[in-house]
Amino acid sequence: MTSSASTRETTVAFQGIPGSFSSMAARAIFGNHISSIHTQQFREIFDCVADDRADFGVVPIENAVAGSVHENYDLLGQYSCAIVGEVQIPVQLHLMGVPASENGNSRKTLKVYSHPKALEQCSLFFDHHPEIEAVVWSDTAGAAKHVSTTGDPAIAAIASQEAATLYGLQIIERSLQNHPDNSTRFVAISKQPQPELHPTKCSLIVSLTHKPGSLYAILGEIAQLGLNLTKLESRPILGAPFSYSFHMDIECPEGASESLKAVVERISKTAEKAKILGFYRQYR
Amino acid sequence: MTSSASTRETTVAFQGIPGSFSSMAARAIFGNHISSIHTQQFREIFDCVADDRADFGVVPIENAVAGSVHENYDLLGQYSCAIVGEVQIPVQLHLMGVPASENGNSRKTLKVYSHPKALEQCSLFFDHHPEIEAVVWSDTAGAAKHVSTTGDPAIAAIASQEAATLYGLQIIERSLQNHPDNSTRFVAISKQPQPELHPTKCSLIVSLTHKPGSLYAILGEIAQLGLNLTKLESRPILGAPFSYSFHMDIECPEGASESLKAVVERISKTAEKAKILGFYRQYR
Repeated sequence: MTSSASTRETTVAFQGIPGSFSSMAARAIFGNHISSIHTQQFREIFDCVADDRADFGVVPIENAVAGSVHENYDLLGQYSCAIVGEVQIPVQLHLMGVPASENGNSRKTLKVYSHPKALEQCSLFFDHHPEIEAVVWSDTAGAAKHVSTTGDPAIAAIASQEAATLYGLQIIERSLQNHPDNSTRFVAISKQPQPELHPTKCSLIVSLTHKPGSLYAILGEIAQLGLNLTKLESRPILGAPFSYSFHMDIECPEGASESLKAVVERISKTAEKAKILGFYRQYR
Repeated sequence: MTSSASTRETTVAFQGIPGSFSSMAARAIFGNHISSIHTQQFREIFDCVADDRADFGVVPIENAVAGSVHENYDLLGQYSCAIVGEVQIPVQLHLMGVPASENGNSRKTLKVYSHPKALEQCSLFFDHHPEIEAVVWSDTAGAAKHVSTTGDPAIAAIASQEAATLYGLQIIERSLQNHPDNSTRFVAISKQPQPELHPTKCSLIVSLTHKPGSLYAILGEIAQLGLNLTKLESRPILGAPFSYSFHMDIECPEGASESLKAVVERISKTAEKAKILGFYRQYR
């Protein structure tokens, strides 16, 4: 998925500005030579891909601590986009502020800006500092940029090391997040499925009635071919009590793409409704 | 689960103050005549139950839009508490402020306080009002109380109708949440499992190796007895790559408690590790 031989750079839409975890994910998948569209909302990313303003979009789909990003699952269900790749980005959240003045440690942080999920993941820090106000910002890197722009030593941001470097902020305290091993999984989306000859993963949304054994039948298909179910999550269908949809990720070993395609086809026939979100590979 | 014949009232610990959704859930399960312990953190609820300061705790476990409250699942895994009941509470989030002065509509909201999940669930409102700052507060009702205490017409809270009534606030805008049909499922916990002769539901956490078919074998047990799997969610085990735990809820029809108990026993034997969180009934 490197940029083509044409002179035009690959255009990638993602939430946030340089220094955001989404921006790190976009570069991990598409390299440094991309033309970026920075959005404020996840929906805008899907819009950019749908109306060809962007070749690809990159969205967070699951955080190891906070769980699935349901908003993006919902958007994947609504838009006709395909997942074409994924990458896992470690999440280290640091507290950062404008560099301390040279004449001493007069810093007193009164307000900390960050994305709501980042604030939630640093809840223990706020428990220990009840005097500090947590303020919601649309993204972590944007919060860092805001702190840098105001130049106010009483405010700080929670963001990545990259954001601190980019916006000239000093790290006040490292790795504020409650869980040291946190990471976020991002997926790349495109308007059309990419011709991927040897996919090792497939994501799909499957709707089932509230009928005993219906999920069992589907998992039987997966088990029979010796594939791995690496994500399975039931979600109530809003407005349809007792109906559930399942988000599934199925992985196959290298070289077993045909089995993967076969099992997904069988699931599509077994389920009431199945939406294949994409066949793809993992980037490292 | 009404209070016993003794003069001592049932003591129930939950997050937040009167007017919180947790408080509404506690009353839905235990009635109005309870002695309440209001905590700031979910962990404190488990501590209160573990060291006998409270007879019961009430914690949110899943929101229809935001998904599982992973923190409480993690705490259920860590503490030796049992789920003894559950209730579903509709979530309507209103914008509220101090009553407008009689000489006109001079209100201009600059800051809105609420719980991070509530702010997230009202994200469309903030998209339409970029001039309004969203500030994190530990709970929705506490945010309402704060607005009431300060008396400042430039700040508002997002909280329940009950909180508006309790703290004398005026509703500025109704049902701010992105999804009209939102609701949260709460569970009651106790130190010891309650003797429940006819449970209709069981929650458990099951650990499985990343082995094809292991989940299938377990679902087979459930399907064989004609029971319903109403929640199934895989969670990566932090620090143990490629290992997953599953959160499961299994329901049985009225009168089929014996089948439910039998299947849970079989699952406990099949799984590598299984923690039964409780056999219980739903309150309405």
